[in-house]
Amino acid sequence: VIDPIPTMEWTGRGLRLLDQRRLPESEEYLDCRDVETLADAIRTLAVRGAPAIGLAAAYGAVIAAMTTDPGEGFAAGFGRKLDLLASTRPTAVNLFHCLRLQREVAGESAGGPEVTGLLLRNAHRLFEEDLEASRRMGRLGADLLEPGCRLLTHCNAGGLATSGLGTALAVIYEAADRGILEMVYADETRPLLQGARLTAWELCHAGIPVTVEPDSAAAALLAQGMVDAVFVGADRIAANGDVANKIGTYPLALAAREAGVPFYVVAPTTTLDPDTPSGEGIGIEQRSAGELEVFGRRRIAPAEASFYNPAFDVTPWRLIEAIITEKSLLKGSEEGLFSVDSATD
Amino acid sequence: VIDPIPTMEWTGRGLRLLDQRRLPESEEYLDCRDVETLADAIRTLAVRGAPAIGLAAAYGAVIAAMTTDPGEGFAAGFGRKLDLLASTRPTAVNLFHCLRLQREVAGESAGGPEVTGLLLRNAHRLFEEDLEASRRMGRLGADLLEPGCRLLTHCNAGGLATSGLGTALAVIYEAADRGILEMVYADETRPLLQGARLTAWELCHAGIPVTVEPDSAAAALLAQGMVDAVFVGADRIAANGDVANKIGTYPLALAAREAGVPFYVVAPTTTLDPDTPSGEGIGIEQRSAGELEVFGRRRIAPAEASFYNPAFDVTPWRLIEAIITEKSLLKGSEEGLFSVDSATD
Repeated sequence: VIDPIPTMEWTGRGLRLLDQRRLPESEEYLDCRDVETLADAIRTLAVRGAPAIGLAAAYGAVIAAMTTDPGEGFAAGFGRKLDLLASTRPTAVNLFHCLRLQREVAGESAGGPEVTGLLLRNAHRLFEEDLEASRRMGRLGADLLEPGCRLLTHCNAGGLATSGLGTALAVIYEAADRGILEMVYADETRPLLQGARLTAWELCHAGIPVTVEPDSAAAALLAQGMVDAVFVGADRIAANGDVANKIGTYPLALAAREAGVPFYVVAPTTTLDPDTPSGEGIGIEQRSAGELEVFGRRRIAPAEASFYNPAFDVTPWRLIEAIITEKSLLKGSEEGLFSVDSATD
Repeated sequence: VIDPIPTMEWTGRGLRLLDQRRLPESEEYLDCRDVETLADAIRTLAVRGAPAIGLAAAYGAVIAAMTTDPGEGFAAGFGRKLDLLASTRPTAVNLFHCLRLQREVAGESAGGPEVTGLLLRNAHRLFEEDLEASRRMGRLGADLLEPGCRLLTHCNAGGLATSGLGTALAVIYEAADRGILEMVYADETRPLLQGARLTAWELCHAGIPVTVEPDSAAAALLAQGMVDAVFVGADRIAANGDVANKIGTYPLALAAREAGVPFYVVAPTTTLDPDTPSGEGIGIEQRSAGELEVFGRRRIAPAEASFYNPAFDVTPWRLIEAIITEKSLLKGSEEGLFSVDSATD
């Protein structure tokens, strides 16, 4: 059995995060004891991945309560801190979902240890639910695979993106546990290289064979019959089954369809956004030119150029074989998502 | 009128190359006065791009003749030096084509100033023919465009990849000259970033507006209707019209088809390889893991991972609207390439 990756840990005084900006070169931890530090950690991708962002924000609400004076002004001060957390990343729906739940827990309370305790208990519950959802998604996904399978994934939808096991990588961990996994291909995932830096790191950590390739080489791998299935995560899933996920997911889905290879999205039901009818309604975060202009200290493009750096793209539901949630397999359609198989456990 | 980029220059004693490994940070030149230095420059991509490699090798044959003792052993010594040049890059057919022409010029000669002069004259002729071919391809390609067009390109098929104007970028330069070009989108082109480092550099140099994006974002640009046509170069074109070009060309062609955007390949007829029936027969160069494992001095993937780093992929002829040569527009088919339009000048 694979141990969860120590993505985040509540220390009693705040949230301790594995600083993902520094992987794989060094394993450093970041102690967040105020909401500003945590918001900055989310914005700069020290913690990233839709479920992990949501959980970090849920613990952030605890920090918000601990650092806001109890009394009459509590609700307003607490609310402003949650607004700051909500402003960090615009696409991941889990962030808004977890913050909404914590706002409900705090209600009209005037603060103090009791509400802090309730918020903490709720954050722990969300964390445990995410871990259990990962295990269920892993089993449902692995049930679709044959022995000797070679899987391809994009970005990092692993332990580092969640409470510790992942979404797409939960399937990979489960397949490895069952002894049916031959190779994982990991797109390096420009510009921030979450595939090369994070997915490869956590798979090596777990002793799972991984091959890293440029994003642009995945289509050639698929065309050559070197991949049996593609598994990716999701940042938001619209009501019709369109999926927003890391930039590069959409061309990967096109290449998989062309090669006749099934393309699966793995995401907990908290990633579903029934209020957004289709992918067109999903706001796509634009990130800074600096991520494309310099690497480390080296300039890799002329300063006079312009840059286009969206964090996500939208994959239409038609390209997706199934969405694997902790409850069942879903398929998209013009009329909305429907279940194609039920979890038996 | 756009000035050709000073990719290479014969100095009388050897070949002076703009060292493309150092762009865009610094403009440095490399003097190649022996075949070993030139072979290393080709292998390490100080000079790259199928037509430029061919021309550099043609001048390399002059250096080979200058540095081989005349007399009985000349033919064998000269031949070995040309073999070294031929061994540098396995995919670009222009390399073999130019070396074959120079071998024919040298024939059974015993060396000396006369044969060196003949080889140099032939290299200059090939250089001038390439420049003229670029101008013709530029005009033929620009004739396909409407005012206000937004074009997307991959890797560098520009002046730096040729005698000085390019293949795909010759079309872009001509469109800019005609005042019909609104924007060029340049895929950054991992792992060696020829799009960000070289294409953006030479377009900025020429005052042409350029936007750099990750390779994986090109599909989103196409899906959003932000691109009117795609133009790429080629390293080898099989008899049926399948095209080997920089890794990432094939998924770009898939995304263009999905978006209903025409996908053009621009290449001189020297890139055609009638001896290779289809893309399956094209040998694909595998490059080193180091290009994916480290960046500058920074490790970007764990040392325990494996790496897959092909230099090229194959785009099937069915995805290509037309191949623009200096003579005419060509279309692929199972029966071979055929001309769909003739150059009128």
